[in-house]
Amino acid sequence: MKHVVLRLPIVFLFLVYVGVGAAQDPLPSWNETAAKKAIVAFVERVSREGSPDFVPVPERIATFDNDGTLWSEKPVPFQLAFALDRVKALAPEHPEWKTNEPFASLLKGDMKGVAASGEKGVLEIVAATHTGMTTDEFSKTVQDWVVTAKHPATGRLYTEMVYQPMLELLAYLRANGFKTFIVSGGGVEFMRPWTERVYGIPPEQVVGSAGKLKLEVREGKPVLVKLPQVDLIDDKEGKPVGIQSRIGRRPIAAFGNSDGDLQMLQWATSGSGARFALFVHHDDAKREFAYDRNDKLQQFNKGWDEAVAKGWTVVSMKDDWKKIYPPK
Amino acid sequence: MKHVVLRLPIVFLFLVYVGVGAAQDPLPSWNETAAKKAIVAFVERVSREGSPDFVPVPERIATFDNDGTLWSEKPVPFQLAFALDRVKALAPEHPEWKTNEPFASLLKGDMKGVAASGEKGVLEIVAATHTGMTTDEFSKTVQDWVVTAKHPATGRLYTEMVYQPMLELLAYLRANGFKTFIVSGGGVEFMRPWTERVYGIPPEQVVGSAGKLKLEVREGKPVLVKLPQVDLIDDKEGKPVGIQSRIGRRPIAAFGNSDGDLQMLQWATSGSGARFALFVHHDDAKREFAYDRNDKLQQFNKGWDEAVAKGWTVVSMKDDWKKIYPPK
Repeated sequence: MKHVVLRLPIVFLFLVYVGVGAAQDPLPSWNETAAKKAIVAFVERVSREGSPDFVPVPERIATFDNDGTLWSEKPVPFQLAFALDRVKALAPEHPEWKTNEPFASLLKGDMKGVAASGEKGVLEIVAATHTGMTTDEFSKTVQDWVVTAKHPATGRLYTEMVYQPMLELLAYLRANGFKTFIVSGGGVEFMRPWTERVYGIPPEQVVGSAGKLKLEVREGKPVLVKLPQVDLIDDKEGKPVGIQSRIGRRPIAAFGNSDGDLQMLQWATSGSGARFALFVHHDDAKREFAYDRNDKLQQFNKGWDEAVAKGWTVVSMKDDWKKIYPPK
Repeated sequence: MKHVVLRLPIVFLFLVYVGVGAAQDPLPSWNETAAKKAIVAFVERVSREGSPDFVPVPERIATFDNDGTLWSEKPVPFQLAFALDRVKALAPEHPEWKTNEPFASLLKGDMKGVAASGEKGVLEIVAATHTGMTTDEFSKTVQDWVVTAKHPATGRLYTEMVYQPMLELLAYLRANGFKTFIVSGGGVEFMRPWTERVYGIPPEQVVGSAGKLKLEVREGKPVLVKLPQVDLIDDKEGKPVGIQSRIGRRPIAAFGNSDGDLQMLQWATSGSGARFALFVHHDDAKREFAYDRNDKLQQFNKGWDEAVAKGWTVVSMKDDWKKIYPPK
């Protein structure tokens, strides 16, 4: 090879270099198991010119759940950790929280007491921590939190608990003409301040649950105020709704980890032509967290059954991934 | 120049060619007036490396109103022409429309009778023509309509009544790293089937008014059904809300033509750094339609006053544009 290369002008050397680059393993943190083979086979089917399953670049839409699919979600979803931190930070301005539930339990560290307040209690925490301020103010609060708050078990920043194999998968898809979107039950305004830096996914490609917004003028300038009314619950049946209302195209590939993602995977795979669906299965208690189909939340049962029935790809974090998190 | 070029290898010839290409006028349908100069000056300010007003590529978001800004809107907004055509097409399935208003007037061609039914009547027409079907069915209906229906005065397809100078502006912005979005009071599901082909703007970059959607299973497959409840009115105060909920970034440039766009232009220009706002003024009765600030709808008055006060750019279609529509 060296002999040939020496006789070629520099522009061809460059092409050879690019060719070598493309031939390198784009998914080095994935073991050589069925999951990786299924991903690569799908991408080649839809992106190779002349393939009977070729899909034009603009239609290569891939949607990813966030919690449990791109980053960890235990012991509590990270947005809830943010909300709890916000309650503590805001407590001095709210003396009434010392006696009002669920805030009183929360401030005492009594998570069972918080849980006892049920969905109503969680909604009160969300309202107190996610509404009333402007979108710019909220974004700033989130940005400050993600660069300082650390996970209690790993000591990592939460944004350092993203899955290295999924970061490689996002980059691999984009290198093959895919546009990658997040479609998450988490709050859209909570994710957008950091998804571009962490995942390479810009704010306009993030779909999530959202509250209503109201345009006001404050100090002579227009601001958008976050209201405590729901605009979109981007979970379960809400995911295809969020995809259609925000993206307007049906994805050809979808990635999730729980029954909250099932309708998104059904939506993606029910279109015509080549389709791909993948569930991340949390079975790695040693390196991450294990919450199986027999988990008391049963959040993986329906998805598992459908994945088996339809031949979707199920990723075992234990067996299919060489690494979980990026190097620190 | 020829002498120098001959001594350079082919790769440099290529670079020279690209350089020549870039130096060609990117806005040939614009006269050499203040509006064009303001556009070019802004784009150069934000895109030239080292400029004090340089804006990184991901933040170069530009939002465009559609009706009256990218295509014509007279004698009626084109989506209303679509709705009227749909009423006629669906009439055989609705014998009751022969006696029920506003359908009875509409089917008799009595537009004054339709107008007499007021906003309620218009909403009934919208509900009858835009809801009840799946998103896929509606998209197909729109696609069929835009390739056949013709404007009563010009005999052109409606999609041939887009503004050539604005097509050039969209391309010029994209060539300089901008991501171009539509943010329109028109229906998002009405625009998305053709904006990519006509404007080069993909569905996921179209924000518009929208009804609620419901996931159902029909014949074993998931579908999204268009409901008669409003999800977003993407007009006036709703435009910044639509921008934030769907795009999640404040545009640095915004383009409109009426008071329905004013809040979008205020929102775009109230951010920090270099900002650009432009109103298209319909003052060309000969080549398009003239509806001035003194128009009975008074849809341009507030925007005009603010444009003058803040130094925004107002485009006179008569004086600033060489052409209105693309060649047939």
